[in-house]
Amino acid sequence: MNFKLVLRIAGFTLLIEAGAMLVPMGVSLLYGESPIPFLCSILIILAAACVPVFLFKPKKDFFAREGFFTVGLIWVLFGVFGALPFWFSRQFGPYIDCFFETISGFTTTGATILTAIEGLPMGLLFWRSFTHWLGGMGVLILTTALLPFLGISSNFLIRAESPGPVKSKLVPRASQSSKILYSIYLALTVLETLCLRAAGFSWYDAVTHAMSTAGTGGFSDMNSSVGSFGNPAAEIIITVFMLLFSVNFAVYFLILTGKAKQALKSDELRFFVIMVAASTAAIAWNLRDVYQTVGDCVRYAAFQVASIVSTTGFASANYDLWPEFSKMLLVVLTFIGACAGSTGGGIKCSRILILVRSAAREVRSIIHPRAVSVVRLDGAPLSEATLHTTQCYFIINLSLVFGAAILVGLDNFSFGTTLTAVITCISNVGPGLELVGPAGNFAAFSVLSKLVLAFLMVLGRLEMYPILVLFSRSAWKRS
Amino acid sequence: MNFKLVLRIAGFTLLIEAGAMLVPMGVSLLYGESPIPFLCSILIILAAACVPVFLFKPKKDFFAREGFFTVGLIWVLFGVFGALPFWFSRQFGPYIDCFFETISGFTTTGATILTAIEGLPMGLLFWRSFTHWLGGMGVLILTTALLPFLGISSNFLIRAESPGPVKSKLVPRASQSSKILYSIYLALTVLETLCLRAAGFSWYDAVTHAMSTAGTGGFSDMNSSVGSFGNPAAEIIITVFMLLFSVNFAVYFLILTGKAKQALKSDELRFFVIMVAASTAAIAWNLRDVYQTVGDCVRYAAFQVASIVSTTGFASANYDLWPEFSKMLLVVLTFIGACAGSTGGGIKCSRILILVRSAAREVRSIIHPRAVSVVRLDGAPLSEATLHTTQCYFIINLSLVFGAAILVGLDNFSFGTTLTAVITCISNVGPGLELVGPAGNFAAFSVLSKLVLAFLMVLGRLEMYPILVLFSRSAWKRS
Repeated sequence: MNFKLVLRIAGFTLLIEAGAMLVPMGVSLLYGESPIPFLCSILIILAAACVPVFLFKPKKDFFAREGFFTVGLIWVLFGVFGALPFWFSRQFGPYIDCFFETISGFTTTGATILTAIEGLPMGLLFWRSFTHWLGGMGVLILTTALLPFLGISSNFLIRAESPGPVKSKLVPRASQSSKILYSIYLALTVLETLCLRAAGFSWYDAVTHAMSTAGTGGFSDMNSSVGSFGNPAAEIIITVFMLLFSVNFAVYFLILTGKAKQALKSDELRFFVIMVAASTAAIAWNLRDVYQTVGDCVRYAAFQVASIVSTTGFASANYDLWPEFSKMLLVVLTFIGACAGSTGGGIKCSRILILVRSAAREVRSIIHPRAVSVVRLDGAPLSEATLHTTQCYFIINLSLVFGAAILVGLDNFSFGTTLTAVITCISNVGPGLELVGPAGNFAAFSVLSKLVLAFLMVLGRLEMYPILVLFSRSAWKRS
Repeated sequence: MNFKLVLRIAGFTLLIEAGAMLVPMGVSLLYGESPIPFLCSILIILAAACVPVFLFKPKKDFFAREGFFTVGLIWVLFGVFGALPFWFSRQFGPYIDCFFETISGFTTTGATILTAIEGLPMGLLFWRSFTHWLGGMGVLILTTALLPFLGISSNFLIRAESPGPVKSKLVPRASQSSKILYSIYLALTVLETLCLRAAGFSWYDAVTHAMSTAGTGGFSDMNSSVGSFGNPAAEIIITVFMLLFSVNFAVYFLILTGKAKQALKSDELRFFVIMVAASTAAIAWNLRDVYQTVGDCVRYAAFQVASIVSTTGFASANYDLWPEFSKMLLVVLTFIGACAGSTGGGIKCSRILILVRSAAREVRSIIHPRAVSVVRLDGAPLSEATLHTTQCYFIINLSLVFGAAILVGLDNFSFGTTLTAVITCISNVGPGLELVGPAGNFAAFSVLSKLVLAFLMVLGRLEMYPILVLFSRSAWKRS
């Protein structure tokens, strides 16, 4: 393992984190708050980052394992250092809570340890939403523009970072395609900000909620999330944008280049649209005794379905009080998540489609054991290796959920709290049910549980394999 | 589909069910209870069974799909007709409840709709435990001795019936190997009965509990299950026998034929022993504040672990009141279940081992994408097809759990009740947590939920594929 080079890259990305902190520091100054928490944090990060950046003279050997290790390390370091402003402010509790909140931010989970959000400094809450925005597109996709300066092909980083089982390279060069993604991401964020402002949000609320939506994170600056505003127009806007950020960004690229027809033929997109529509209809029907008008039922249902499948985790109502059918459906959607190639998390719709089709083939093969049939996605046959990887992904995901639930069970909260806390963290959604429901938070968990849940967030965000491989002996052998 | 032959076979097995009812009728007479419920049931079954048995003259075409359809049909018919004594007694509620209880019996699940068990007629409670015993070994394994009379190879039935992914044929001829299994099963049941009698149980309690243990079912004639007796010796005996019935019966065959060394080399057996020991230790440690002595902690923990992994579902304590860590571990064990080739249910230890090993290989392959490695069980390499089937088994199991949980959610019980009810039924365990915990029951569920749960029990008991294939179009096409 070429540790020097790994640390040098990590150092460079930490410099970006320090630079990013200038934005919330500016917000603090704008609102007359103390910039000290940010200033101290920036100085510490600079001190820590400069050592590997300026003193290390690494060899240029960079293999897959270095790529995976770099990715994992950067996410942890971003959590470790990004937590400093919260910690210096003394308003976010002990350091473990600050760390949890920051990892939750950068992994775009949105699970919070805050028990009372309103009244906290504007600069800090801005930083909280900003971590979503930075994390959403992948801090590392930003760094693909930086890596060429190091003289390193960034293929491995992209491979580790890009979400979803099916790589759809937009344009051949990685740094160019990351610029396109970045532009679409920025444009949609600005558009949502303007829409929210038009719907009556303050500029501050508009920007923070747009950033949290873009990253499919879900931090709000209100205790009762989006529901606090009582603004149906804003709820509808956020619903639409949550769905937009759940779609494979390659779809937008195709639309922009005049290939809308091809984009709309995507199996995953169709599955996603049908799933969202059917879930919204089912939950709206189930809410018929909860809300007075059909319009309200549909609006609340659509918002929550969009929030969960996009893995954002905003709430326009305390859905923990909804009937069990709706809640169970939302938990299942928590597992499924968004489309591959979006900023969303979860298992991903394309994987679910592949799993459904390969399971159906398996059942058919019992009657016709000698018939050879392939599983297809978008018309193209998938290799058995892809099926295998996808099946293992599901199995590992569920195994981690069960294993982590046993550990978190040590805190002795209810079955629903324990299990949904784990599921919502590995899927990067944010809220679960009961104590960790939309009206609850993660403050009461022990340090062990917070570490386990933070680990799950990173695992989920990086699609597990890049992190799991670090636990394999073969990753550490000399090649 | 050769329906005439399918119905003829089903008719024959129903005659066996009618014959089996003579035993609880005798028990009724012995205790001075009315034999009418059984008499009426037997007459109805005879009338229904005689039509296909004596009037149908079917062709002898019998393919895999006929085998699967027969298996599925017989399990449903056994539930439909086996419920009659309960229904005629008018003490088991509406017919759907009687049906649920009987399916729960024959699938060796042990989930009950009874709210008060003590005081019910002895004959009926005997029938309840007897369904476990009959179901445990597979009513169809009994019928393999009958099928040769029909001039039909019973290979497909065995294939559908024998639990577990790895077929370990004991001796080449199916009917002979079923006789060996049957003898071991009977011998262990008698042995447990004698041990329980020696520990102070009445003959009646000893026989019913031995039958419920043997089938890994879990019906008790007491409201508080085995815990009602306050008999630690009996609890230890039942613990041991639950574990004995969870082991692949091929192990006993090997031991009986002097190949104990080979038997003890089984990967699955080792995994099972380690899992039971580790879970018992962990739960005993977690119970340190619940019970006074270390001995009590270990005894209660061992009983419950054995009860859940064997998928029996007895309780020596109301474990729903235990700390969440223990409960979550028990829920995870509910998924895993017993060894293949035993009377237990669940996903099965051998499948879990295969899944763990294939997932580990998948992670390793990220670093060494071109290295070819095989997954082994007991030293022998497994085919990729076996891995694929096993992975799909897990995926389908979990998908059914989530799908069914949404449906059962319509009853609006808590998250824990809903989810564990579904898990415990598909794994053929019996009790779950909260409302369906060891002190609870399934009476409050709607007719829809009871049908869904009964369907899951049959799916779980028949290892899913034989039933699922009936939902595939290709099973109904002319070949």
